[in-house]
Amino acid sequence: MGNPKRVPVGIVGASGYGGVQLIRLLMEHPEVEIVYLGGDSSAGKPYTDLYPHLFHKVSLNVEPIDIDVIASRCEVVFLGLPNGIACDLAPILVEKGCKVLDLSADYRFKDLETYTTWYKKDRTDQKTAQKAVYGLPELYREEIKASPLIGCPGCYPTASILALSPLLKQGLIVPETAIIDAKSGTSGGGRQAKVNMLLAEADNSLGAYGVAKHRHTPEIEQICSDLAGHEVRVQFTPHLIPMVRGILATVYATLRDPGLVREDLITIYGAFYRSSSFVKILPTGVYPQTKWACGTNLCYIGIEVDPRTDRIIVMSAIDNLIKGQAGQAVQCLNLMMGWDEALGLPQMSFYP
Amino acid sequence: MGNPKRVPVGIVGASGYGGVQLIRLLMEHPEVEIVYLGGDSSAGKPYTDLYPHLFHKVSLNVEPIDIDVIASRCEVVFLGLPNGIACDLAPILVEKGCKVLDLSADYRFKDLETYTTWYKKDRTDQKTAQKAVYGLPELYREEIKASPLIGCPGCYPTASILALSPLLKQGLIVPETAIIDAKSGTSGGGRQAKVNMLLAEADNSLGAYGVAKHRHTPEIEQICSDLAGHEVRVQFTPHLIPMVRGILATVYATLRDPGLVREDLITIYGAFYRSSSFVKILPTGVYPQTKWACGTNLCYIGIEVDPRTDRIIVMSAIDNLIKGQAGQAVQCLNLMMGWDEALGLPQMSFYP
Amino acid sequence: MGNPKRVPVGIVGASGYGGVQLIRLLMEHPEVEIVYLGGDSSAGKPYTDLYPHLFHKVSLNVEPIDIDVIASRCEVVFLGLPNGIACDLAPILVEKGCKVLDLSADYRFKDLETYTTWYKKDRTDQKTAQKAVYGLPELYREEIKASPLIGCPGCYPTASILALSPLLKQGLIVPETAIIDAKSGTSGGGRQAKVNMLLAEADNSLGAYGVAKHRHTPEIEQICSDLAGHEVRVQFTPHLIPMVRGILATVYATLRDPGLVREDLITIYGAFYRSSSFVKILPTGVYPQTKWACGTNLCYIGIEVDPRTDRIIVMSAIDNLIKGQAGQAVQCLNLMMGWDEALGLPQMSFYP
Amino acid sequence: MGNPKRVPVGIVGASGYGGVQLIRLLMEHPEVEIVYLGGDSSAGKPYTDLYPHLFHKVSLNVEPIDIDVIASRCEVVFLGLPNGIACDLAPILVEKGCKVLDLSADYRFKDLETYTTWYKKDRTDQKTAQKAVYGLPELYREEIKASPLIGCPGCYPTASILALSPLLKQGLIVPETAIIDAKSGTSGGGRQAKVNMLLAEADNSLGAYGVAKHRHTPEIEQICSDLAGHEVRVQFTPHLIPMVRGILATVYATLRDPGLVREDLITIYGAFYRSSSFVKILPTGVYPQTKWACGTNLCYIGIEVDPRTDRIIVMSAIDNLIKGQAGQAVQCLNLMMGWDEALGLPQMSFYP
Repeated sequence: MGNPKRVPVGIVGASGYGGVQLIRLLMEHPEVEIVYLGGDSSAGKPYTDLYPHLFHKVSLNVEPIDIDVIASRCEVVFLGLPNGIACDLAPILVEKGCKVLDLSADYRFKDLETYTTWYKKDRTDQKTAQKAVYGLPELYREEIKASPLIGCPGCYPTASILALSPLLKQGLIVPETAIIDAKSGTSGGGRQAKVNMLLAEADNSLGAYGVAKHRHTPEIEQICSDLAGHEVRVQFTPHLIPMVRGILATVYATLRDPGLVREDLITIYGAFYRSSSFVKILPTGVYPQTKWACGTNLCYIGIEVDPRTDRIIVMSAIDNLIKGQAGQAVQCLNLMMGWDEALGLPQMSFYP
Repeated sequence: MGNPKRVPVGIVGASGYGGVQLIRLLMEHPEVEIVYLGGDSSAGKPYTDLYPHLFHKVSLNVEPIDIDVIASRCEVVFLGLPNGIACDLAPILVEKGCKVLDLSADYRFKDLETYTTWYKKDRTDQKTAQKAVYGLPELYREEIKASPLIGCPGCYPTASILALSPLLKQGLIVPETAIIDAKSGTSGGGRQAKVNMLLAEADNSLGAYGVAKHRHTPEIEQICSDLAGHEVRVQFTPHLIPMVRGILATVYATLRDPGLVREDLITIYGAFYRSSSFVKILPTGVYPQTKWACGTNLCYIGIEVDPRTDRIIVMSAIDNLIKGQAGQAVQCLNLMMGWDEALGLPQMSFYP
Repeated sequence: MGNPKRVPVGIVGASGYGGVQLIRLLMEHPEVEIVYLGGDSSAGKPYTDLYPHLFHKVSLNVEPIDIDVIASRCEVVFLGLPNGIACDLAPILVEKGCKVLDLSADYRFKDLETYTTWYKKDRTDQKTAQKAVYGLPELYREEIKASPLIGCPGCYPTASILALSPLLKQGLIVPETAIIDAKSGTSGGGRQAKVNMLLAEADNSLGAYGVAKHRHTPEIEQICSDLAGHEVRVQFTPHLIPMVRGILATVYATLRDPGLVREDLITIYGAFYRSSSFVKILPTGVYPQTKWACGTNLCYIGIEVDPRTDRIIVMSAIDNLIKGQAGQAVQCLNLMMGWDEALGLPQMSFYP
Repeated sequence: MGNPKRVPVGIVGASGYGGVQLIRLLMEHPEVEIVYLGGDSSAGKPYTDLYPHLFHKVSLNVEPIDIDVIASRCEVVFLGLPNGIACDLAPILVEKGCKVLDLSADYRFKDLETYTTWYKKDRTDQKTAQKAVYGLPELYREEIKASPLIGCPGCYPTASILALSPLLKQGLIVPETAIIDAKSGTSGGGRQAKVNMLLAEADNSLGAYGVAKHRHTPEIEQICSDLAGHEVRVQFTPHLIPMVRGILATVYATLRDPGLVREDLITIYGAFYRSSSFVKILPTGVYPQTKWACGTNLCYIGIEVDPRTDRIIVMSAIDNLIKGQAGQAVQCLNLMMGWDEALGLPQMSFYP
């Protein structure tokens, strides 16, 4: 820290898992310097009180959230706060000239009514929200480059949308048949102490939650509808898996053309993601393990077609905290700043 | 051991996880006595060489598989062998008057052509196979009571069929929309040493396998077709989960009558399983955790309806080695012998 | 429930893991009936709000803690409360004629000064405390039979003391060389939501805690001193292991007589525990896995001698929630009531 | 791959976990290029048949082990073979001018008799073995720089010796009181399919193995004796922990000077490791979690003194596959080549 040519960045809400990923990634990023860490409950404490393993690397204290301080010190601000708070901060930060990357749901929706319906909060920042871009570079690369405000995608939507995009964009499936059965490690639930997330409860067990009502549903549907060119409804069911990191989305849909075989679809996916270096389309017969993506910004996609049922089954695996959260935000930052999209982003997991 | 009034039972293929569950269950069963343990690779060894924690409980040696010895000593025989072997032994054992419960796939199919297509083995025991009953007591209770030969269901089919049966039997869904996304602990893969089942590989990871080609598909379809009264095809995708025991099947299907709400369906399921004490239909809004079923012969079923998509989502949780294998076999034995169906079968898990 | 001949028992503090084990064990116990469940934070709620998997088994509500109600309804009371509360309730309950089994630390110490030093609470119930017996049946069987008040041992002390007792009782080791390196699953930390017990934190990791200051140290030392006949100090270090249940204590000590070999010691241990059916001394060269004890009231002990260093290494494995807590309490209850010591206590794990 | 200025390196025995770590680390190392991967059982196959997640990164095939080919193509050779094979290859490779880093036990012992006693193999390569240096840079930095052949330490010895070195070097403890209770994730057992390493067996369980006879004992003793200046015997007990990666060594020893407090020892350790950037001495009261070291070449050390017993307890945590194996080998390579010791070695884990 201290290189004057580096871009000064701040993280508001640095105490959670998203925050600590950002710190990890940004500290090894060659073009930025972390100059501010903000938080409420831990304000005034050394950051390493929260994460002692960083004691030799991070000397910053958590500071109170003061928007003038942030704007005066930071060129780029990551917001890692609970839903419904960023929409109070971002308008001011953007006005003051900061580039803002919000990791909450606040700027993911074009239509704030949908947000209000699902997140139960009225919004008055329509003007700012109109400028926000959904931070999925594989779909909105050019828009991200041009925007000062990014609504970074949820973890499940990232895995789900990357699995569905080529199919919807090219009209290959009957959209209303799309079913997303998603499985996530428990770090997706954050660092809050909750009984159902205790190892003693969650280990050696498995269950669905939020069935037919999880708030990532409208987020997925918004992007799917954008791709399809008409309104799309999907079935989305998340499950909690006894592991720390990783999401696997198993996506089912009925093919419009039952003549397509899996090799056709692998070719189509390969072409669709040709310029997206973080999406890896697996060869015939290979299905992704979430572990392959752990610690990386990659999304591995495996494809199968069942000629008995005319369905395609797409499996996409990501690290929920990197490609599903902090890594994707850094990927967006790289685009916003005109840097190499892959700068500072890990591309090989440690296996096993 | 030694009570002359107890029914003498034998286990052929006792070295695997199915075998050790059977031993655990049968040793605490009040009406039987284990008098024979058979195996190939471990013949001649004390059984506790395989499972040292039983050293104070099990004094039997593993014996070579000699069909005359087995028939002369045992009134009931459990076969826990790889697929394709039971069909050589069972005809003789049945002829010699034994009751036979086969845990492999050999006697699960009415139609041996289907077996041959999926299991790649020609069969000449049609006559015996005709006598076999599919050992799912919740559906075939009376037939099981009357048969000398039970083809015990696979673990995935048990969870899947229990979730689907009321829907198919009563024509509530469009059958071809049925999708089963199943998740299993790794003990389902048996006690064979395989690289992909090592803790170092399988822990903290998650993936699908056998997509669109798993051999439990035709087994599920056979029973679904029987229930529906016409041929049914389902989509079945198994996943390996980083835990030891448990299966969760998440089943999706489109309701014929979009006016049905989840409370209706909970009532329907409750009625359907009224006389099946091992199937527990959960109240509104409660979804099963696999852990709840671990160490028991229970199947917990949670039900949700999505009015946005007119789909029902059914989640069923079992212990893959008990209700999904050895416990269900004992449940069948109880029926065959005219005992209380629940005799010797655990009904409460140790939690957590 | 409802058998008039069964002994009515109550559980105060039923919401934690100890409580739910007790419920599990007592519901299958042939001589008792649970008639009261008490708690503070969950008073008024159905017990199955806390543990939904029991919805078909437990119809009791959690009641407020009213000592007159408890005493009037229950012949036996289990106290599963945080440290420092039982000592307010037990004196009254005992006086009113209840048999009391306390799972907290309050009645584990003969010397209340030691309690006050380590648990920071002054005590005025010396008279009651004098009647209390340390509830480790393998050492204090006769005293337990005669007492109305049992201070049930901690989980770590149970594993540690069972490993050390024959050595100390018979003067085989140099006591001050005893080192106990103990490893526990996270359920030992209870059902309170704490960040360090989240699966995301505790899984795939391992660490020591409470080094040189854990409060189970004086408890172990008290019993060790009693066995040795003089004051003994031990080194005790607990570790948190990424698993739900189970404790392994690896105990090191220097042998007084370097001529002893492991077979001698196996013989000595076997003799020492001859009338203790829950302690299983493993044969030469077999070391215990915690999994072997899971779901049981057993303690498996493996013994090794290192002739290079003249040390004995004893490994003891228990289920921390059963032999280490609720099962041991039931074992004490059986003794207090004059029943078979093993009544209602599981002796075979489900493996794997 | 293809930069002509990079140093060409080969990996013989690339199929195991050590091999795949080396590939991961060396592919991101700025000064080397992998030009050869050798193996027996997988010779002729693409490397990504073994590790499909690398399909987009690694295009090399596994080649047969031909020593002339290796020597002609590689300037540096890593040997990741089973014990007892490297000693046949290394003498020739060294003679042909290669720098050799052996990950097996073959070149860890100065005294080949000790090797033969514990590894049951006679050796004829004394001359070569004399040139070998034990590859623990924190102790033998200068020797490593000057040697063509490095015997890379075992995983347990790395964690154990780093914990003990300052104590032995400065005579602070009574050496024969040293007890190392070590706990390892199962990846330490390698990628061979073994029943006891299956997730179904090893998950949710814990046990010791190799008690009083593990082959890392003489390796630890050799270095401890070198540090102490006289022969030292230690007690070493390894345990298998239900996690993938990581080792924690909990080390106990009696202090010679009971006046020392933990702050003194933290200062002493800090000074001892002042020029060793990978060893992190934790502040007072902080104990290491293995997770902190995962994916890094770090060793975290926590220190406690028990004034009641005059013992020091040192806890050291490493990633068994990086600092305990492949990362340490790369650290040695950096020294041998005159590069920055930390080049290409990760220093921050992804948490959680």
